Amino acid sequence: MSTGKLLYAQSGGVTSVINATASAVIETARQHKLKVLAARNGIIGALREDLIDTSKESSSAIRALAQTPGGAFGSCRFKLKSIEDNREQYARLIDVFRAHDIRYFLYNGGNDSADTAHKISQISRAFGYPVNCIGVPKTVDNDLAVTDCCPGFGSVAKYTATSILEASLDVISMKESSTKVFVMEVMGRHAGWIAAAAGLAQRSEDAAPHIILFPEVPFDEAKFLAKVKATVERIGYCVVAVSEGLHHADGRFVAEAGGKDSFGHVQLGGVGPTIANLVKDQLGYKMHWAVPDYLQRSARHLASKTDVEHALAVGRAAVEYALAGQNAVMPVIKRTSNAPYRWKIESAPLSKVANHEKKMPKNFIRKDGFGITAACRTYLEPLIRGEAPPPFGKDGLPLYVTLKNTPVAKKLPEYRIADK
Amino acid sequence: MSTGKLLYAQSGGVTSVINATASAVIETARQHKLKVLAARNGIIGALREDLIDTSKESSSAIRALAQTPGGAFGSCRFKLKSIEDNREQYARLIDVFRAHDIRYFLYNGGNDSADTAHKISQISRAFGYPVNCIGVPKTVDNDLAVTDCCPGFGSVAKYTATSILEASLDVISMKESSTKVFVMEVMGRHAGWIAAAAGLAQRSEDAAPHIILFPEVPFDEAKFLAKVKATVERIGYCVVAVSEGLHHADGRFVAEAGGKDSFGHVQLGGVGPTIANLVKDQLGYKMHWAVPDYLQRSARHLASKTDVEHALAVGRAAVEYALAGQNAVMPVIKRTSNAPYRWKIESAPLSKVANHEKKMPKNFIRKDGFGITAACRTYLEPLIRGEAPPPFGKDGLPLYVTLKNTPVAKKLPEYRIADK
Repeated sequence: MSTGKLLYAQSGGVTSVINATASAVIETARQHKLKVLAARNGIIGALREDLIDTSKESSSAIRALAQTPGGAFGSCRFKLKSIEDNREQYARLIDVFRAHDIRYFLYNGGNDSADTAHKISQISRAFGYPVNCIGVPKTVDNDLAVTDCCPGFGSVAKYTATSILEASLDVISMKESSTKVFVMEVMGRHAGWIAAAAGLAQRSEDAAPHIILFPEVPFDEAKFLAKVKATVERIGYCVVAVSEGLHHADGRFVAEAGGKDSFGHVQLGGVGPTIANLVKDQLGYKMHWAVPDYLQRSARHLASKTDVEHALAVGRAAVEYALAGQNAVMPVIKRTSNAPYRWKIESAPLSKVANHEKKMPKNFIRKDGFGITAACRTYLEPLIRGEAPPPFGKDGLPLYVTLKNTPVAKKLPEYRIADK
Repeated sequence: MSTGKLLYAQSGGVTSVINATASAVIETARQHKLKVLAARNGIIGALREDLIDTSKESSSAIRALAQTPGGAFGSCRFKLKSIEDNREQYARLIDVFRAHDIRYFLYNGGNDSADTAHKISQISRAFGYPVNCIGVPKTVDNDLAVTDCCPGFGSVAKYTATSILEASLDVISMKESSTKVFVMEVMGRHAGWIAAAAGLAQRSEDAAPHIILFPEVPFDEAKFLAKVKATVERIGYCVVAVSEGLHHADGRFVAEAGGKDSFGHVQLGGVGPTIANLVKDQLGYKMHWAVPDYLQRSARHLASKTDVEHALAVGRAAVEYALAGQNAVMPVIKRTSNAPYRWKIESAPLSKVANHEKKMPKNFIRKDGFGITAACRTYLEPLIRGEAPPPFGKDGLPLYVTLKNTPVAKKLPEYRIADK
């Protein structure tokens, strides 16, 4: 039914379910006989005319893609300037779109990517080249505006809550004669959504995590140490979740604050070890720390089923919106009921999503600053519900697909990205 | 049929399946109408007469125990001295055993625990108190002698290989414009079994991990950096697994070596960030690092089915051996076939297990020192086969059981452990 092709690109830090969105985009497009090209490494590939022909992938590979973490076509950290500031780059994009008959562009990413998608959505008007540009939400940071939540977040939330629950059982076992304080660092430089998710493990008052350190709450060292001490003295151990974005009242990140331990060593690396060393030096407790880093956002083996369903739904909707002639929009998740949890997909203007960062509401953080409220739990819990494990091979490891990623023959002169 | 009670205790760092062994011990004993007490916090609880009455736990709780990580009765790091050096502690143990009619003692742990179990097994002869003492194997370090593998290791191996596989898909996605080198630190201070397990993720020549740094191979910084550089130049990224026990040729641990980064900062904390910072400083590549720490040994959600079966089998066998009148033995796993993988449980003398550390065979490490051999893969792969996920609750988290741990009324005067 359609003319032209669809170009799909992944952008920003990847998640364990962004490929589920890619899979849904390709499957939905195939149902509409719409050919899908993918840009290798996000917008960089679009500029370089480095395109992938997804029609070379089998149906089973595209189904397996929905269960594979990472970004199958490559992602990038690259922000387009405004049309006014870099008209030449947009002209190049249109050259590429025209050369390959691209009439639909889907950009799958977070805040910066919504901004890029929004800029590209304006080129029809500015350059007279007709392309329907749809932003597709994705980010473990859960900080996109308008949408109730972001595909990718539910799975990292499930991983974080499960991991701290499991590790806490380890610490409880050892507290009598070994580790008394365990610190786990989680992602989220500006918003504490992932740190908050750790709080889901706290099913009862004295359960772990006993302390959450949010980027929204300036670090109060004395108050923190007092709480650790009181917790250890009451129940024998203390589990702490700390956001990588934890900072002092003056805005300096705790992990980059240049603080020194009792040996005069300057602290390097993550805030997790920094906080754990602080506990050891000031309170003398034996401690352990963990920094799961990329493990948390690639743990497809522990994906949330709800999250996978969101990721698939936004991919399907993006294709439908594009084919229906929409431009400059993003399919977003709207929660219609908490109990039972119900949601639907809606179309939202990219202008309302781009460059707005959704912080944690104040009423999601407990008054003492160290935990989540019931309102936060009500919001978060549905997002980690359900399991959607990948198939495992006879070798005991998940069966993740590697696509062929067959390049499309180039038609244009080579292009160098000036300000990459 | 039996007279007397069985005392079960957990020892050393816990694993994601040590409670499966506990569950099998209790279920098997119940089938024999044998009452099981558990020592709270391992041998410390036995000395303090801090005992738990497991008969207060429901059958469903004991079944759920098999799917719960950590050590449900508490573990400890505490090594008994020899009978000659601390006769008084053994006399106290016998007082406790006698007061509670304990005729069977099962000690579930690693190397140090096998030593403790072996010492206790000698008290029948030394003190004339009849008790059958059985060591039960458990350790993520996989370094117990005689047994083909150790319950607890297969699951941490599966977690490690899966995690590095998943994280590598993340790095591949971002390599064009972001992270090029990823370093994951794994446990294993003296033996590189867990580091070796990371190598299972390398299903093809260029797959991650590209470099494994073993405690068995002294760290050669120049050779390592050259390999990282060559890998990034060939395929665009490099994934490294490093054992916490990595050391220099002179025996100093790399993480404790007091090395300085390019800013003159003394390195603190784990070897993972140390190695990652080295790459950044010397080669200039953007890097990320992860230290899963306790997450790796408590990840029951990703347990190996083979490992769970081993853990159950040694628990069952330990009770049978005890009731059959065996003393000073340990049920060990004997591999009878690689393809298909077959194994059985055998009885081994504790004297052969205690204080012998099983290192990686030389032919398991590749000649260049950076990877595993086919022989190593043949050994490791069956140990991570199969999945055994716990049930998950409606809240999206695993349903782990918390036992009642009802104390047994004390009959003896309070006891202070002198040299704890």
